[in-house]
Amino acid sequence: MILSGGLDSSVCLALALAHRDNGGDSDGERTLAVTFDYGQRHKVEVGHAAAVAAHYGTEHLVVPIDLRGWGGSALTDASIAVPSAGGNGIPVTYVPARNLIFLSIAVGIAEARQLDAVYIGINALDYSGYPDCRPEFLASFADTARLALKRGVEGHPVELRAPLVDKSKADIVRLAAQLGAPVHLTYSCYRGGDAPCNDCDSCRIRAEAFLDAGLRDPAQ
Amino acid sequence: MILSGGLDSSVCLALALAHRDNGGDSDGERTLAVTFDYGQRHKVEVGHAAAVAAHYGTEHLVVPIDLRGWGGSALTDASIAVPSAGGNGIPVTYVPARNLIFLSIAVGIAEARQLDAVYIGINALDYSGYPDCRPEFLASFADTARLALKRGVEGHPVELRAPLVDKSKADIVRLAAQLGAPVHLTYSCYRGGDAPCNDCDSCRIRAEAFLDAGLRDPAQ
Repeated sequence: MILSGGLDSSVCLALALAHRDNGGDSDGERTLAVTFDYGQRHKVEVGHAAAVAAHYGTEHLVVPIDLRGWGGSALTDASIAVPSAGGNGIPVTYVPARNLIFLSIAVGIAEARQLDAVYIGINALDYSGYPDCRPEFLASFADTARLALKRGVEGHPVELRAPLVDKSKADIVRLAAQLGAPVHLTYSCYRGGDAPCNDCDSCRIRAEAFLDAGLRDPAQ
Repeated sequence: MILSGGLDSSVCLALALAHRDNGGDSDGERTLAVTFDYGQRHKVEVGHAAAVAAHYGTEHLVVPIDLRGWGGSALTDASIAVPSAGGNGIPVTYVPARNLIFLSIAVGIAEARQLDAVYIGINALDYSGYPDCRPEFLASFADTARLALKRGVEGHPVELRAPLVDKSKADIVRLAAQLGAPVHLTYSCYRGGDAPCNDCDSCRIRAEAFLDAGLRDPAQ
């Protein structure tokens, strides 16, 4: 279970735990939340992820992989500013190969720890236009992981689950409320200040979703 | 260019540089050797990689990504012994998702640094039976990377090149001699001692290859 500390992955964790508690997984009780400390400008989210995992009593593993060594994104290169919301195309907050790297490590952990599935809270409707959030990327990754892993070769591949992939952000806000997810512990801002900037793409998308859902954001 | 410090990746670097010097790449002079410091038992190989890169005057980036956090392999878990050569099936020296993780990071670096291709020295003939060394894995990874990366979406994906994939180990030894690759600087042993153990799978495959090629191993 990849947990960034943002809204989507926290709701995804709530869904994964609900699925498990309904007897949906053969590995019963075991759920591991994995957070990447990747040199992100908003490193503060790692602490939020820990708080969300603690809220659920879920084992939490922080994996350091410093993507600043090569940069190429406003989130991993201090010399590139995070823009205000808006603009066309793939924005400068896109991090080259981020979800590819995170999922690769996650399936490796799943194999080593004998966990059956990897959850990721990507969604492809209300998002920032990153190519590695699209369902076609995820489907292709699942094929590649099946070929890469011993357990894929042995006929029981790690399952990839992205239960939010076709949800709108307002749907995710509603789901959070239904599931009682600890939204007050989550953090979505790209700029990484103690309080959200309410100006970047991520803050703006979150604010519009709460507005659409007719709910108040408890993290504000 | 992924460089472990072993024989195969060093010959692969020699091939990449020969290709570049023949005008084969649009990005001209730029080659970057990337070595993963992944908590491997044979960490000594990282120094060998640096020596091989220095031999060629190639820029060298060491990327720390500690795979011991979840273990699952004799190479990343000190409690699992490296076996002597032989045995059937995928051996305990297999590291879950290793090449998937390394390639994912490598294509991210290639995109961030605007490099056109990633070379990897995998071969699927004389090897240890790892699933992530097979050509079908690599072909699938190339598809997935195309979908994950901005430059894939924009129509100029990072190329994946594995020029040794269908070579025998003896062929690779002969290639090394033809290209004048610095074989004396390479290191292949899984056990990580100062001198190779000449007992593990990797040492045994290397020794047999030199025997088949009728050449002496200058690293012995």
